[in-house]
Amino acid sequence: MATTINITKRTDTKINNVDFNNLIFGTVFTDHMFYCDYKDGQWQQPQITPYQAMSFDPAARVFHYGQAVFEGMKAYKDEEGKIFLFRPDQNFKRINKSSARLAMPEFPEDFFFEGLTELLKLDSAWIKPGVGNSLYLRPFVIATEPAISASPAKEYRFMIILSPAKAYYAGKVRVLFAEKFSRAANGGVGFAKAAGNYAAQFYPTSLAQKKGYQQVIWTDANSHENLEEAGTMNVFFRINDTLITAPTSDRILDGVTRKSLIQLCDDLNINCEVRNITVSEIKTAAKNGSLKEIFGAGTAAVISPVEAFEHAEELFELPEIENSYGSLLKDSMLKIQHNLAEDKHGWRYEVR
Amino acid sequence: MATTINITKRTDTKINNVDFNNLIFGTVFTDHMFYCDYKDGQWQQPQITPYQAMSFDPAARVFHYGQAVFEGMKAYKDEEGKIFLFRPDQNFKRINKSSARLAMPEFPEDFFFEGLTELLKLDSAWIKPGVGNSLYLRPFVIATEPAISASPAKEYRFMIILSPAKAYYAGKVRVLFAEKFSRAANGGVGFAKAAGNYAAQFYPTSLAQKKGYQQVIWTDANSHENLEEAGTMNVFFRINDTLITAPTSDRILDGVTRKSLIQLCDDLNINCEVRNITVSEIKTAAKNGSLKEIFGAGTAAVISPVEAFEHAEELFELPEIENSYGSLLKDSMLKIQHNLAEDKHGWRYEVR
Ligand SMILES: Cc1ncc(COP(=O)(O)O)c(C=O)c1O
Ligand SMILES: Cc1ncc(COP(=O)(O)O)c(C=O)c1O
Repeated sequence: MATTINITKRTDTKINNVDFNNLIFGTVFTDHMFYCDYKDGQWQQPQITPYQAMSFDPAARVFHYGQAVFEGMKAYKDEEGKIFLFRPDQNFKRINKSSARLAMPEFPEDFFFEGLTELLKLDSAWIKPGVGNSLYLRPFVIATEPAISASPAKEYRFMIILSPAKAYYAGKVRVLFAEKFSRAANGGVGFAKAAGNYAAQFYPTSLAQKKGYQQVIWTDANSHENLEEAGTMNVFFRINDTLITAPTSDRILDGVTRKSLIQLCDDLNINCEVRNITVSEIKTAAKNGSLKEIFGAGTAAVISPVEAFEHAEELFELPEIENSYGSLLKDSMLKIQHNLAEDKHGWRYEVR
Repeated sequence: MATTINITKRTDTKINNVDFNNLIFGTVFTDHMFYCDYKDGQWQQPQITPYQAMSFDPAARVFHYGQAVFEGMKAYKDEEGKIFLFRPDQNFKRINKSSARLAMPEFPEDFFFEGLTELLKLDSAWIKPGVGNSLYLRPFVIATEPAISASPAKEYRFMIILSPAKAYYAGKVRVLFAEKFSRAANGGVGFAKAAGNYAAQFYPTSLAQKKGYQQVIWTDANSHENLEEAGTMNVFFRINDTLITAPTSDRILDGVTRKSLIQLCDDLNINCEVRNITVSEIKTAAKNGSLKEIFGAGTAAVISPVEAFEHAEELFELPEIENSYGSLLKDSMLKIQHNLAEDKHGWRYEVR
């Protein structure tokens, strides 16, 4: 691919200092980064440079008004050394949807894909083959203009940084259904990967963690009756042999994993309903034994099984289950992502 | 006041390059800035240095998860050259309340006041006397730790930057009552000065601006029936001779101007009710002529009179009014702030 990127390479590499068996997620970064500034109404020359700290004015609007959006993607390497992304077109569309909602300029498609491609080719040694290994990709956009009036910036920086991620088998999680705090408002920015949505969840999540729950399942801010999504995952519930997941809305992120799983259910003849799910429905199902599984779905862990949930001081433990839909779907997804299974829907994107 | 601050002064000053009669709000900064880093579980040695760009890792959590809170205050100078702040204890408490909601560490009171004091003394030439002139103070806290897992940072920076502000007589504003978009959720972070709350308003506000309205008056996200606040102001409605303002809640910022005005109404024998106000009540009052005034209240403009509002494609023009409560209250506030009137409630804080 011809590129318009101005590339400055590192002469050495940090990779030999990295223990790939003991990675703490999101703390180690590769040798290079991509960035592109927006000013005078247009995106400037894209750059790849050694990964490094950058200079920002203390008045940069991102520090004051939270004009910042991001994406989370992964690159995989097969045994032959080929590099794949999973549905990157979805992340590209979503980052621009997020940007539009925050009054930020959209990033051009060719810059996005050239940036990913060139950066992954330069740092390809950081992608380890083997199911479970991946390189986490973090595209993001921040408002850099130094001006503190409460209005949209005129200058931005789009960046991509890369962080190697180890197979993520954190085990099962215990979750709390939200009763008081909430994540998003109708007519708000919940559907966007807006930076501020995440900071807003940290305190309620820390309260849940003190009670022994790793995650909160958010409910609607009005009635706290509708189960919506987790902090960085959409959620699926299995009642008898039917999977159910909430419809997306202006409060809920339209997850790439979620929409891929819905399609895979169709492929695998698993009945999957997209509809509102209430707390009382799930509690009733837990009590009468028809609730078989709950799992989160997102890029980080693909699928994260839930072993217990609490609501209104009542604790519900989920049964151990054979033929878990969660495991089946996770296995199918990983095989497609790692080029180990047929890619019926054209989801794999080879980086070359 | 004894100080623990490490001070590095500029040898020259930028002030001679500044045209104080043509200031664009929030774009010009003084010679110095204050900052203090949090790491290893505690706030480190505070610093005052020349105002300058600083280096940040691209993985700093503020860029990804919006862990950022801020305050807005003003310093005034009287004709004798004495410098005053207005109720800075309120801003100090509020920034820590905001920080707590975003799982950020609270800043120590002595550092906050020493920082303000030393910085204002150094840059006191930037505060011009005269009603309407002021120096805008922007304390803020951002998450600096370079790590992109979705959890609270372990490292932060508290900063104060200063920007001279000219008398703000922007004239009357036209506003749109929100019908679809919203600012805050029940159980969310609307009451905090969280950075992400502001970016979320830019796009809906830009739509209003395209229709000829400078500001949106936000309504509750559930029914869009309750009038709450504007982007950076609380709102007061006058029906006949009664002022009404919405109660604060977890969706509404507890404004220093709002609470001071409520007290001033008491002092001036103006009847002021703190209660829910509905869109239909205000539309009815506009139609039958009992709606006399609407104004925003906030640190930037003190009071910002509204000349017209639109809701559901219906436009309402407010009457010209004699003995406007807005003007009366603004005048009283400015006199107290500029040391031109008695300070019955101990709101002025002299910087020395
Ligand atoms: C709020 C939220 N919901 C859901 C998801 C899952 O989305 P995806 O499957 O695209 O990673 C994420 C993570 O990206 C998220 O941040
Ligand atoms: C959302 C919001 N409401 C109201 C206000 C007014 O608050 P204060 O009077 O403390 O400036 C502000 C500005 O600070 C604000 O950001």
